[in-house]
Amino acid sequence: MQIGSQFLVNIQPVGKRIEVPAEVSLLESARLAGVELVSLCGGLGICDSCKVRLIKGKLTKHTLEEHAIFSPAELAAGYRLACQAYPLSDVTIDVPVESLTAPQRLQIEGQGVVVTPDSLLKSIDLELQPPTLQDLRADTTRLSDAMRLNSEFIYSDQPYSFAHSVLENISDRLRLEDWSVRVVYRGGEIIVLLPIASQMLGLAADIGTTKLAIYLVDLETGQTLASTGEMNPQISYGEDVLSRISYANQHVRGRYTLHDRLMSTLNKLTADLCAQIGANYEQIVDAVLVGNTAMHHLAANLPVRQLGEAPYVPAVSEEMNVPAGQIGLMIAPGANTHFPPNIAGFVGADHVAMLLASETIYRAESGQVNYPVIALDIGTNTEISLIFTDRKSGRVRVLSCSAASGPAFEGAHIHDGMRAAPGAIERVQIDTGGIRLHTIGNRPPVGICGSGILDAVAQMLDNGILNHRGALRTGHPQVRQGSRGRGELLLAPATSTGHGNEIVVTREDVHEIQLAKAAIRAGIEVLLAEAGISAVDLATANGVSFIVAGAFGTYIHLPSAIRIGMFPTLPLERFAQIGNAAGIGARQMLLSEKRRQYAGQIANQIEYIELANHAGFNRLFMQALFFQ
Amino acid sequence: MQIGSQFLVNIQPVGKRIEVPAEVSLLESARLAGVELVSLCGGLGICDSCKVRLIKGKLTKHTLEEHAIFSPAELAAGYRLACQAYPLSDVTIDVPVESLTAPQRLQIEGQGVVVTPDSLLKSIDLELQPPTLQDLRADTTRLSDAMRLNSEFIYSDQPYSFAHSVLENISDRLRLEDWSVRVVYRGGEIIVLLPIASQMLGLAADIGTTKLAIYLVDLETGQTLASTGEMNPQISYGEDVLSRISYANQHVRGRYTLHDRLMSTLNKLTADLCAQIGANYEQIVDAVLVGNTAMHHLAANLPVRQLGEAPYVPAVSEEMNVPAGQIGLMIAPGANTHFPPNIAGFVGADHVAMLLASETIYRAESGQVNYPVIALDIGTNTEISLIFTDRKSGRVRVLSCSAASGPAFEGAHIHDGMRAAPGAIERVQIDTGGIRLHTIGNRPPVGICGSGILDAVAQMLDNGILNHRGALRTGHPQVRQGSRGRGELLLAPATSTGHGNEIVVTREDVHEIQLAKAAIRAGIEVLLAEAGISAVDLATANGVSFIVAGAFGTYIHLPSAIRIGMFPTLPLERFAQIGNAAGIGARQMLLSEKRRQYAGQIANQIEYIELANHAGFNRLFMQALFFQ
Repeated sequence: MQIGSQFLVNIQPVGKRIEVPAEVSLLESARLAGVELVSLCGGLGICDSCKVRLIKGKLTKHTLEEHAIFSPAELAAGYRLACQAYPLSDVTIDVPVESLTAPQRLQIEGQGVVVTPDSLLKSIDLELQPPTLQDLRADTTRLSDAMRLNSEFIYSDQPYSFAHSVLENISDRLRLEDWSVRVVYRGGEIIVLLPIASQMLGLAADIGTTKLAIYLVDLETGQTLASTGEMNPQISYGEDVLSRISYANQHVRGRYTLHDRLMSTLNKLTADLCAQIGANYEQIVDAVLVGNTAMHHLAANLPVRQLGEAPYVPAVSEEMNVPAGQIGLMIAPGANTHFPPNIAGFVGADHVAMLLASETIYRAESGQVNYPVIALDIGTNTEISLIFTDRKSGRVRVLSCSAASGPAFEGAHIHDGMRAAPGAIERVQIDTGGIRLHTIGNRPPVGICGSGILDAVAQMLDNGILNHRGALRTGHPQVRQGSRGRGELLLAPATSTGHGNEIVVTREDVHEIQLAKAAIRAGIEVLLAEAGISAVDLATANGVSFIVAGAFGTYIHLPSAIRIGMFPTLPLERFAQIGNAAGIGARQMLLSEKRRQYAGQIANQIEYIELANHAGFNRLFMQALFFQ
Repeated sequence: MQIGSQFLVNIQPVGKRIEVPAEVSLLESARLAGVELVSLCGGLGICDSCKVRLIKGKLTKHTLEEHAIFSPAELAAGYRLACQAYPLSDVTIDVPVESLTAPQRLQIEGQGVVVTPDSLLKSIDLELQPPTLQDLRADTTRLSDAMRLNSEFIYSDQPYSFAHSVLENISDRLRLEDWSVRVVYRGGEIIVLLPIASQMLGLAADIGTTKLAIYLVDLETGQTLASTGEMNPQISYGEDVLSRISYANQHVRGRYTLHDRLMSTLNKLTADLCAQIGANYEQIVDAVLVGNTAMHHLAANLPVRQLGEAPYVPAVSEEMNVPAGQIGLMIAPGANTHFPPNIAGFVGADHVAMLLASETIYRAESGQVNYPVIALDIGTNTEISLIFTDRKSGRVRVLSCSAASGPAFEGAHIHDGMRAAPGAIERVQIDTGGIRLHTIGNRPPVGICGSGILDAVAQMLDNGILNHRGALRTGHPQVRQGSRGRGELLLAPATSTGHGNEIVVTREDVHEIQLAKAAIRAGIEVLLAEAGISAVDLATANGVSFIVAGAFGTYIHLPSAIRIGMFPTLPLERFAQIGNAAGIGARQMLLSEKRRQYAGQIANQIEYIELANHAGFNRLFMQALFFQ
């Protein structure tokens, strides 16, 4: 290979071409061409999520990693890991559907945002007298004087201060608008000048590791005017939080790349929403971003290295208000971006927002609820809180922890796993007559998503296909011989699928689900044990005692979650699946200063339990690995 | 000319080469090559300051502007205006010395900075306990808690807030410094983390239209550790304030270009000063910038269009604190840059700083001085203040105005004018025996600077060479026939000069000086008239009643300034030439919060008189045009 060579990489079936230096991997080439490949392990070569097939041309030799992942037949067929292969000539590669970060089902709507707007932001329409030789006041003095004469809310005798972004164009703006402007201010600070009578908007975003949900809200009426969702573009740099942190640490300016990618997607979505309702981005005068601690740090441009190293502490846990311009968020540059408080390295502001929106703490403190309540949000990390009244003190306490449930429910590390996109199997029913499947969009199946694999495992248990350790009973009529001598279940024969390949459930798949469900269940049990509460107290409650938030939590089949032991055995009416409560909480904080203060109170109230440091966790985890 | 052609421009005697598209003028080509040409008119083609000579190659045809400026002989010799000529082939051009913005004499030192440091910035050295599984506080919480336990000055029970730039690297910084840091804070905000025991520095800069003076100061001792001066790099975009504003208005992002050029020179000088004393730029935790209103706006990245259009109002007159990062100043990014208040479109913060440092107002108010005092700073605009005790109210009043004295004293619009660089004639003595000259650096003369032309005119008056209208008496033995039939004075014959050309004083030169001195004198007279004071009150004072600040003011020969009528006729002991008082005032404000507050008081106290709007100004100006 000559140093300095450039090769053309032709990416099919997408049809993109890009010329890259020989030192650029296929994964990076695809990224540069705007084709986002899944990269679960962050380019370490230890998963097959970025697999591609060489159609034409010459690549570097197979690496040890590729020999470990692909069978000789697959290698012969041209399969490669895009993160391991570099062009030695012009090449054409084929990207299988499952390697693309495809558009997919996202939940952006939950329950309504019931809150009375009480934003600190005010606006006033002013008509100023232009300067004359007799009245040579500076533009800021003129505006500040008029504010003090006209605004209902007199801040003080002090002149108003101005966001520097307002100063940067105040003179041109005032003259362009012929000295009539809407002034948007927060306390004594003027943050943007708009045309007379412009609507004031706010932006709320829930930044998930996998998914983004964003909302455009009318700050005066509280109405959500538009909303949208999209995959988190950082997925191409690693599927879970730890692989992203690892990317940030191992690449020059890696952290900034992750920040920039996130912001440019947020900005694109914001621009789309503005276009939908005919608004200008400068009308967005406030924003609230929630996410887990790593997403919070990457969004706020904070360091993340320490989040990936024991003892995993955040740079910042207090709430922050960051000028939008400072983090590259394209809203009124003088606007603040509010980041609600984090709890710990793996319990972030999104969990605070969920607790806020679900009202569990308020209901306990006001006496509306007199029994303990579990509230959790399932993701690659599952944040769990237990809200209960302490017998000794009589006070309401909140214990929280984070369970490392892993990305199995996002379809990762599952033989035929995929995210909840069209063609994903989301429901499975097995009986002696056979297997019935339901897919998203009723398409021919191409893989299985989190709720589907959950169902499948529960049904395999009900039909005696699995033993309590999670092994497939090889004697069972529906179990066939799989790889390495282990049993596997054929869910969909090749003839029935969208891509012409079989879809199976393997012993390894079941094991991944065991790890995930055991982590969640052990977390629940640690909190109950810490509080001296048993699952019976949850079961005998006279109302909802188990709240499941988040998109995945909404789609799971509760009886299956109970059957596999992920959740304790409670009557179904004790459960509530409340959807994207974090997004609701974010919008509440956007609209209301009181809600922001209350979120601060919640964060202060939470007692964080570090599972890695908890004496009983390992035993509870080992117990929870088994099936009943 | 083909669209898209590229030509090589070879710039001599500097020896720089640059390839440029055909659409780029020679002026712009020189700039791109890093060769800064003077451009007094901002590229409008109405002055000859950017003149160059074509040595080889082909340029576009002479423009009408060039025909107006050059004689047919000069055109034949290849002289061109760099702003008007574009290459039609590879070219070689010669840049005469006078077209280069040469290094020159700058005054950066004045009287001492006598002020007791009382900065709002404090620092404390902390040794933190690193996080453990038993102590998972976020990095900011850990630091904030330690601050509250250790700092002498307890701000409040609230957690400390952090500049976002501190947050951006707090985790890495704490770990790199092994949890021992010097924390620099202002009130409840932490603005930078430094290695233990780092010295805290401040930056003061006086941003003149022509010259920059910058100082690095120890914030604890008040000592000026290093200082330097350089030409304002914006000179290449227009010599005076109005041509810069015109450049800003007529070019895409012109205002940002001027801002960026200024900042990059300030940053280079700051880096040089840091290197001199072995400091890191992050140790500079505070800054004060002063300048006239246009320089203030360009430095702070504020709009300037309205400064160039009647009625010439500033965007901002109040004092401002702008995060350094926001204006691209390379000091600790969490540091504030303090901009003291402006008075009006043409009386800026530099005048406030000068009044502060000169103590004139304080002396009047404390009764140390019981007579009126004039204080002025001569530049392309000359700011003049009159401090006096009002007879009716018994209170001290300050009247200020700005006189459009023009750039003649910088050597512009003078036939053989130049700035105060080596080879400039700075003293002239004429008697019947002949003419004696003194040049800067005792070099053979190459032109005449402001103090030289002032002397020349005064001496021409004393020797009867000029009449009271400013015309050269053509019958006088030392006067020869000049161009257009007018008399001119030969100051230096070609054989005596550094460039082999004659140096002369023309009728037009005298006229320029008449315009400049009349503007200043009329400004003084307007203020005196407004206050009901006569020059006799200044003359009979029992101390200094006429303060001349600034670099140029320091070098002028006072008897000459009186002789030509620029200053009123006062005993010489009434005058004080105090040097760069604005730079001293800036350093005082850097060191002391009390001085900042006092500067704010001064700004509020000043009554601005707009000369353009003053009934008596035109008459006084016409009177002042004549000589006595």
